[in-house]
Amino acid sequence: MESFKKYLVEFIGTFFLVFTIGATAAFGGEGVIAPLAIGFALMVMVYAGGYISGGHYNPAVSLAAAVRGALEWKQWLPYAFFQILGGVVAALVINMISGGLDPIPMGTFKIATVILAEFLFTFALCYVVLLTATSTKTEGNSYYGLAIGSTVMVGAFAVGSICLGAFNPAVAVSTLVLGSVCCCKLACVTICANLVAGLVAGCVYKFLNND
Amino acid sequence: MESFKKYLVEFIGTFFLVFTIGATAAFGGEGVIAPLAIGFALMVMVYAGGYISGGHYNPAVSLAAAVRGALEWKQWLPYAFFQILGGVVAALVINMISGGLDPIPMGTFKIATVILAEFLFTFALCYVVLLTATSTKTEGNSYYGLAIGSTVMVGAFAVGSICLGAFNPAVAVSTLVLGSVCCCKLACVTICANLVAGLVAGCVYKFLNND
Amino acid sequence: MESFKKYLVEFIGTFFLVFTIGATAAFGGEGVIAPLAIGFALMVMVYAGGYISGGHYNPAVSLAAAVRGALEWKQWLPYAFFQILGGVVAALVINMISGGLDPIPMGTFKIATVILAEFLFTFALCYVVLLTATSTKTEGNSYYGLAIGSTVMVGAFAVGSICLGAFNPAVAVSTLVLGSVCCCKLACVTICANLVAGLVAGCVYKFLNND
Amino acid sequence: MESFKKYLVEFIGTFFLVFTIGATAAFGGEGVIAPLAIGFALMVMVYAGGYISGGHYNPAVSLAAAVRGALEWKQWLPYAFFQILGGVVAALVINMISGGLDPIPMGTFKIATVILAEFLFTFALCYVVLLTATSTKTEGNSYYGLAIGSTVMVGAFAVGSICLGAFNPAVAVSTLVLGSVCCCKLACVTICANLVAGLVAGCVYKFLNND
Repeated sequence: MESFKKYLVEFIGTFFLVFTIGATAAFGGEGVIAPLAIGFALMVMVYAGGYISGGHYNPAVSLAAAVRGALEWKQWLPYAFFQILGGVVAALVINMISGGLDPIPMGTFKIATVILAEFLFTFALCYVVLLTATSTKTEGNSYYGLAIGSTVMVGAFAVGSICLGAFNPAVAVSTLVLGSVCCCKLACVTICANLVAGLVAGCVYKFLNND
Repeated sequence: MESFKKYLVEFIGTFFLVFTIGATAAFGGEGVIAPLAIGFALMVMVYAGGYISGGHYNPAVSLAAAVRGALEWKQWLPYAFFQILGGVVAALVINMISGGLDPIPMGTFKIATVILAEFLFTFALCYVVLLTATSTKTEGNSYYGLAIGSTVMVGAFAVGSICLGAFNPAVAVSTLVLGSVCCCKLACVTICANLVAGLVAGCVYKFLNND
Repeated sequence: MESFKKYLVEFIGTFFLVFTIGATAAFGGEGVIAPLAIGFALMVMVYAGGYISGGHYNPAVSLAAAVRGALEWKQWLPYAFFQILGGVVAALVINMISGGLDPIPMGTFKIATVILAEFLFTFALCYVVLLTATSTKTEGNSYYGLAIGSTVMVGAFAVGSICLGAFNPAVAVSTLVLGSVCCCKLACVTICANLVAGLVAGCVYKFLNND
Repeated sequence: MESFKKYLVEFIGTFFLVFTIGATAAFGGEGVIAPLAIGFALMVMVYAGGYISGGHYNPAVSLAAAVRGALEWKQWLPYAFFQILGGVVAALVINMISGGLDPIPMGTFKIATVILAEFLFTFALCYVVLLTATSTKTEGNSYYGLAIGSTVMVGAFAVGSICLGAFNPAVAVSTLVLGSVCCCKLACVTICANLVAGLVAGCVYKFLNND
């Protein structure tokens, strides 16, 4: 039952994250609006659910947390499942009310750049999550949600036009449902880069905090 | 007397929230300005009045707080009354200095979408309020106002163009006075969706936090 | 000597506040930039100097603090002097590097609206300062600077186009030096509205917090 | 080994700061985006690495910290080295994926204005860092990263169009690699102004906090 509460929190948080991504793409304006809304949507959900489930809303973050020892390994799969479920349900609701988004043509992106950009900012995100939200030396701080949400906002501003800008496998899967990505290849490449970044961030954290 | 202090704080906070909504609609620019100003106006008033009245400024939030046990049930009606009064007085002041806003034609919105969008983000708002500002496990945190105000900002960015974007019955009533809503139906639908969302959020909180 | 440290902090903070106002008017872009920069400039200086001088940077805030008992009455005049000095020096530097700003014609504003708008948001600012930064019940919080700076940002977004948008007598004096205000009348009206708002906010605080 | 952990954190933080500067210049939009992204990138890295290395990411800040006694003098050179290394590597990566930025012609700036603007906001940055992140009187606060990142954002809004807007020698060196600065003179002037500002801020801090 305690586990199910965590899954529910992860579902709700990822739902609102992906709903905000889809809604700003479908109905929002341009420029500064989507990154700002997406970063703050993540921040809000991290603050709301952080003390119950950890507030990951992202299988790459859950992977980094497992490597660091902040999440039991056996919880990774159900966390990822409920995160992806939340994202996919949000995408279906957006499709229902918007009539579907225009697909981004695959040719827009260079694969090597996509891998690099997704790796770098997913690494930054997991590095920030582990250092601000799981370190005993900064326990009880009030800034972790602001730092985590802002990392995604910064990533979306910096590289949002040269990659998917997901930094999150659950978001990458949801974009397939949203129809804004025309083929699976871009989503798969993104998901791999995200998960590798989570692994690397977990190892860097262990190096920095274990003597 | 202690109760009247709470009502005064709720009046002042809702006054400034609705005044900011009306003033950015009448004199502000477009795009990012109104959601940013409105979200931060709420944040500011939550931080200022939170420790006196709870800083709701929203009958749906007060309803969620009553369900969760953070507000006495007999206080809900006077809270709602002073919140609506603050909003209506702000709307009258805006009308006086602006000469009135242009009405939004009813045909702009689909009722089913309005209900869904108002429900989702009012739920998110009440969920965030209860988890960040009323949980004993996160008592004394400094982020609750940022999280609460940002939820409204994210909602305004995400669905502000497909519904009233009130997430708050006191705001919905005030838009009637502002004249930006041409008939009562949209306001009534919004108010119902807001209150139901507050109820559901209260129940979800009780499930997550009661064993 | 301890007093002089406080005056130095007030001088530095008001200098950077007015420098940001002048620089965004002279070199910055339009729309969202000036309110965002000005609000965050105030926030930054409140966080930096708050524990030394109180971080007022505003004679109306110092007046509210004196009414509330958070500042000795005999300190009000030197505080106001160093605040205005900081603002005027910043305005002179801006004039030197920009060659002067274009004046805002007096006819742009209605005096009654100026008084109302300056009163309302200076009241909000002083109310937020007293409740977040001087109340013993919220001592040690980390949000007071964010709340205070954001109040000015919200005011600039909401009523920045229908009044001077100073909410601060030191800023009002500085705009005369900047040359963006063509006659003294607007500045005087603004200063009076600011100071009255500080007095009223001090009284409201005492009512809310004294039994 | 403990020292190397600090250098790694300084390398990672400065890498992401300069990567964000380069990426928003190469792929980002205009107006509000670059200052917002850069300020929040710094904030995020300050929160992440602050408790390990101090989270400077800036040789001028490290200099101010050394003057104040928050960094051993013998650590200044390796700190500066790893900060510059992080910035230069980020610039090389940006060059690789973007094909290089357009140079800013030297004639755009007046040297005296560059010196003044870089001095003022680097002073503000170091003053804010020392007062919010190194004072024992505000230990354990959650706002230091927000205040530090926002100072750079405010500086970029206020004077970003009349100087390099670096406020940081590691950033100034990196702009040479990015190719956005066509000659060394502007970078050298900027670096000198930054370091002098760090020294002055360290002295002002010592005056304000030592009796």
